[in-house]
Amino acid sequence: MAVGLHDFPLIPEIKGVRIGVTEAGIKKANKKDLVLFELCEGASVAGVFTQNAFCAAPVRICQKHLSTTNSRYLLVNTGNANAGTGKSGLENALKTCDALALQVGVDVDAVLPFSTGVIGEPLQVNKIIDAIPAAIANLSADNWNAAGVGIMTTDTLPKGSVRTFEFEGRTYTVAGISKGAGMIRPNMATMLGYVFSDISMDEDLLHSILKDVVNKSFNRITVDSDTSTNDSCIAVATGMASNVKLTSINEPLTQVFISAFTEVMQELAHAIVRDGEGATKFVTVEVVGAVEQQDATKTAFEIAHSPLVKTALFASDPNWGRILAVVGRAGVENLDVDKVQLHINGFEIARDGGRSPDYLEEHGQKAMAPDEIHICIDLGMGKESDMVWTTDFSHEYVTINAEYRT
Amino acid sequence: MAVGLHDFPLIPEIKGVRIGVTEAGIKKANKKDLVLFELCEGASVAGVFTQNAFCAAPVRICQKHLSTTNSRYLLVNTGNANAGTGKSGLENALKTCDALALQVGVDVDAVLPFSTGVIGEPLQVNKIIDAIPAAIANLSADNWNAAGVGIMTTDTLPKGSVRTFEFEGRTYTVAGISKGAGMIRPNMATMLGYVFSDISMDEDLLHSILKDVVNKSFNRITVDSDTSTNDSCIAVATGMASNVKLTSINEPLTQVFISAFTEVMQELAHAIVRDGEGATKFVTVEVVGAVEQQDATKTAFEIAHSPLVKTALFASDPNWGRILAVVGRAGVENLDVDKVQLHINGFEIARDGGRSPDYLEEHGQKAMAPDEIHICIDLGMGKESDMVWTTDFSHEYVTINAEYRT
Repeated sequence: MAVGLHDFPLIPEIKGVRIGVTEAGIKKANKKDLVLFELCEGASVAGVFTQNAFCAAPVRICQKHLSTTNSRYLLVNTGNANAGTGKSGLENALKTCDALALQVGVDVDAVLPFSTGVIGEPLQVNKIIDAIPAAIANLSADNWNAAGVGIMTTDTLPKGSVRTFEFEGRTYTVAGISKGAGMIRPNMATMLGYVFSDISMDEDLLHSILKDVVNKSFNRITVDSDTSTNDSCIAVATGMASNVKLTSINEPLTQVFISAFTEVMQELAHAIVRDGEGATKFVTVEVVGAVEQQDATKTAFEIAHSPLVKTALFASDPNWGRILAVVGRAGVENLDVDKVQLHINGFEIARDGGRSPDYLEEHGQKAMAPDEIHICIDLGMGKESDMVWTTDFSHEYVTINAEYRT
Repeated sequence: MAVGLHDFPLIPEIKGVRIGVTEAGIKKANKKDLVLFELCEGASVAGVFTQNAFCAAPVRICQKHLSTTNSRYLLVNTGNANAGTGKSGLENALKTCDALALQVGVDVDAVLPFSTGVIGEPLQVNKIIDAIPAAIANLSADNWNAAGVGIMTTDTLPKGSVRTFEFEGRTYTVAGISKGAGMIRPNMATMLGYVFSDISMDEDLLHSILKDVVNKSFNRITVDSDTSTNDSCIAVATGMASNVKLTSINEPLTQVFISAFTEVMQELAHAIVRDGEGATKFVTVEVVGAVEQQDATKTAFEIAHSPLVKTALFASDPNWGRILAVVGRAGVENLDVDKVQLHINGFEIARDGGRSPDYLEEHGQKAMAPDEIHICIDLGMGKESDMVWTTDFSHEYVTINAEYRT
């Protein structure tokens, strides 16, 4: 049911990254559910994580390990989120790191653990430990597609993105994978996203770029307004492209990298929305003419979360009054409703706070018919704007989430 | 599909109130859609209204008229909300007041207009004006059930509540009707609620009591988080019981009235949730142990709005991890997740931030099976609490809202 989601791209080798994928038996029988990333020594690694106070055990361990030593391995299981699991959850996450560290000969802090799946059930830690040797044996430079599949939960398709660019005679690659389809309203990161480059970059600079770009990609998508306990987004710069290590945002190569990195991050974020649970529409909500950017952000998210707007989108029904009703309750200070304009896919729907004088029902029908919908609200107050991406709300969403554990 | 909604009660005559109900042809052929309340001279009338900036034309007129003179007539149409209709919407609302005022011989300001239905379409004002004589001719003291039916939109049943009480030898009645099933997340009022008493009470006191009680009733319900453009709640004290006019909150009769009034308001508010679009569950969300009441309110509403919690409720699936995940993202400052407890219908589900040691899947199944669900979260931080009421999220909700205009 994914909307305009392209096939998984051909991702070339990124020097300094190898991937192993196997079955631990956590998710379902005969499903890849354990993914191991091996990074070369000296790679810069940055991460951003969920702001949910009930953050999962692996998120806590991951943050601690990231801050203590150079990361060498990312270990990802699906099928169980290891969240809402208290102290034993932390112990279990650490056990998997320990087992891996012992077998590959690194410090336990060099392993970053990630989990995704059902919340609140104990992690079957022995199944993971037993599968680690197979994941190590499978390590290879071209396992990207398998990794994309291996981190899926309710996703219907694996999600990947890649860009290459040249700079002063050298070729650089930025590529990544993501997963997520429900419980999607990332707050500082997404469900799971991993982006790698062979560029050489100082870790603090990479972290600062990641924090900035995540606010233009994963932090601007929502499927169902529910922020996950396990959101994690990791950026890696292996340095194997052998450029002089970047340390400043102002260097020309840094700027070119940010451009490619943003494209990859946005494509991965959009892929999550395109594959959103039950999605039949890919919807861009743009709010312009705000005095403060946060008014635009807030209004756009309120529209994107409204069950009434989402069901109207599902029906391709130009029930645009519901959109105005959300704008009115979004809490924009000093909003003058008589200045509000609404366009959908280029059609002027509302002007001066009411139905456009030229509006015809057939315009509304045409505007709402396509799979890709662009809603643009002009608040008519100032010059700030923001944009978020979301899905509609369908019967399939209810079915998926009513039957998730069965 | 309503959950535990009782039959419309037998409401006795309330002296000073007469009701006329007729068909204006706005909603559908052969459906009552115009309701007229006539109030005696000298009745105290108080109102609270939507905080949506896109409030409907009749809401604006209603607020203006309430503040200028004594109200004598409430004129309610369904089928069209007259919202998002700009200046012509205001003119249309005023035209209906004018037509009625002329025929009954009162000042135009003595008429309060109300509309509910589709947003953004022009009000067919002539149909209403043409139907006013029939509404006047139908005025009678015992038209309560017809009025309950006449204000329905997607409601499946009319909603009424009544209490009588004695005080120092006199009998008093408090009774009302309400409507609403979708776009329900009242903010200062509900979709439409009208409560009448024969008590004699100063208008300012009535208004202050209404504002307080609405925060324990209509302002604590949510079906789909969408605040309507037309929310209005009106309280009337006709004074025909001939008690000495109440002017203070501290008088014993005022306190007895507040108790009956609160029961009626809560029953009417709950009726909206019980008849919520597609509802298969009536859900009470209680949050205790908060430092500030607003933390409890916020957390309870976030749980009540979560599509993932609501679909799990629809499936009677004890996927309680989703509830903890919402608690974690609700923004409670200094939340210590290791102190959080969760009970559902009396079963201890989570303790100290994780699954209760005694928890069995069959406890969860039993807890989630009934039509009436009580979710209780203890934040373990302080002594403040709050409670909201909501529904689950079903296929029927999607069907109703995808097909609303067809």
